[in-house]
Amino acid sequence: MAAIRNEDSLIRSIELRFGAKRGRQLPLGVGDDAALFSPSRGHQTILTCDWFLEGTHFLPDLHPPDSVGWKCLARATSDIAAMGGTPKCFLLSLALPDTHTGKWLNEFLGGLRRAARRLGCDLAGGDTTKQKDTQISVTVIGEVRTGQSVLRSGARPGDLFYVSGRLGEAELGLRMLRRGRKPTRSRDPFLRKHLYPEPRLALGRWLAENKLATAMMDLSDGLSSDLPRVCSASRAGALVEVENLPLATVRSARDGKKIDLQQLALHGGEDYELLFTVPRGKAGRIPRSFRGVRLTRIGEVTPTRSVRLLDRSGREAELSPAGWDPFHN
Amino acid sequence: MAAIRNEDSLIRSIELRFGAKRGRQLPLGVGDDAALFSPSRGHQTILTCDWFLEGTHFLPDLHPPDSVGWKCLARATSDIAAMGGTPKCFLLSLALPDTHTGKWLNEFLGGLRRAARRLGCDLAGGDTTKQKDTQISVTVIGEVRTGQSVLRSGARPGDLFYVSGRLGEAELGLRMLRRGRKPTRSRDPFLRKHLYPEPRLALGRWLAENKLATAMMDLSDGLSSDLPRVCSASRAGALVEVENLPLATVRSARDGKKIDLQQLALHGGEDYELLFTVPRGKAGRIPRSFRGVRLTRIGEVTPTRSVRLLDRSGREAELSPAGWDPFHN
Repeated sequence: MAAIRNEDSLIRSIELRFGAKRGRQLPLGVGDDAALFSPSRGHQTILTCDWFLEGTHFLPDLHPPDSVGWKCLARATSDIAAMGGTPKCFLLSLALPDTHTGKWLNEFLGGLRRAARRLGCDLAGGDTTKQKDTQISVTVIGEVRTGQSVLRSGARPGDLFYVSGRLGEAELGLRMLRRGRKPTRSRDPFLRKHLYPEPRLALGRWLAENKLATAMMDLSDGLSSDLPRVCSASRAGALVEVENLPLATVRSARDGKKIDLQQLALHGGEDYELLFTVPRGKAGRIPRSFRGVRLTRIGEVTPTRSVRLLDRSGREAELSPAGWDPFHN
Repeated sequence: MAAIRNEDSLIRSIELRFGAKRGRQLPLGVGDDAALFSPSRGHQTILTCDWFLEGTHFLPDLHPPDSVGWKCLARATSDIAAMGGTPKCFLLSLALPDTHTGKWLNEFLGGLRRAARRLGCDLAGGDTTKQKDTQISVTVIGEVRTGQSVLRSGARPGDLFYVSGRLGEAELGLRMLRRGRKPTRSRDPFLRKHLYPEPRLALGRWLAENKLATAMMDLSDGLSSDLPRVCSASRAGALVEVENLPLATVRSARDGKKIDLQQLALHGGEDYELLFTVPRGKAGRIPRSFRGVRLTRIGEVTPTRSVRLLDRSGREAELSPAGWDPFHN
């Protein structure tokens, strides 16, 4: 792809890369003042946006542009999964330095397009401008049948807390990357989870359609930061059993000793797994795994507003948020 | 407002400022993974997003936070006006330095809330993070009756080009600001137009509902940059009559001599007026002004792809884009 001369040619490059094919629900995409979207009858529209900023959410020396493209869309789409919805299209706000309009942009758009196809989410429009650092904001538009969305506020005392997948894996991947592991074509699952997260769309939809989850959110900042958000929205508390946390499985015992896997599971960010609550009476309908993704009961919703941790010896302690917060980093 | 300790308290501050009042179409706003929006039957959803970046779209020493709040929403909403639609709600992506979470944020939210009320556009959600410079991306969600939207691509040779308001006024306001004019409580119309632009929502809707406009866009970068975009989308050209351009009216003849008002009208940015085309047979239905906003015929759509300027002496010349382009600033 040639270097970009002006904003119009940057927009044309993006349009070219994504093709002019317009879905039934997207009669008008990139290139007009705004995009048009035809909502489905009997559905509500889900709206979410996420920052992806150089220096804050990715590091220019560490993260390949292909991963930046994939991840900026995947993490915003994870919010749609957490509502039990289906992604439909997205808007891309892209601010780039002049140096990034050639090879970098090309690889970035490659990763973005792969994610868009994988997630079934078409590019609808956006805004581009020049900036010293690379800055991205992605808005994803999804849909959910009216009345079927799963909010953070629906957990009731006695409901059981579940998580999908294993916790702390993405943080492990980030550590590997920081230690110098080459990100290109790595088959390492931790590295892949950090660089190319997969929002749990099918699981979120299944839980919503079958009315199994009373509350749900995606784990972006880490369990210790995100779980209190479900509790706060539901005006309830939680008791988490340390023993049940699905820890990352490291290859050798030596690796496991060097790393506190429990701390990683509690505080590690960016797993983009789902945290959800299920009424006790429906717990039997939650399988051990859903389409290859492990589902684990990690505790229960309590009537008191505190979030507590039950350790192996039966002792309880307060769980303080120690996940990722941009205002503390 | 107290300084912000973390992301959750920043979100709560914003929510508090905007109130928990939720409209019929916005059953779930700020505070969950995503927002829910109930689309109207028989309507399409309009989606648009706009950057508003420190150093690019506003200057920290020049622009009061109140204006930053108003303008970031107003300019994104102007795209909804240009489609003939009605704004419904918006998402706010806000990245702030620590120094801006107190007084600056308070005044910013004040301007944003005034704009939200004026434009009938509720805060639905967003994302916040910390950053060295203040960076804003606003996504506005609007609606238009299916089939009634006005695109850039509908202009046909022989149609007449119109603009609303007077051109170059916002650029004049920016020049006054740069010369040291105090922005606070100024009643100067040029300064107001630069700091607190008013998207032409009623006009856009009226043109769309009455099927008077064949193409439409809002003037953000300047006529010489934006008009070729309508031509390009419509696969047509334009002949603009210099004599008919609605120039800014300056108070004294001396002021007028110092400033080339014609150049301002052609290339000045950020007027957020509407540029639209009307079939010749419907020109009689376009009034001289609409709700106090002047409407002016400035030229016509031509079959050749060139954009030309007809001067007072009858000479024609190519009009080259010389408005605002972030990749040339």
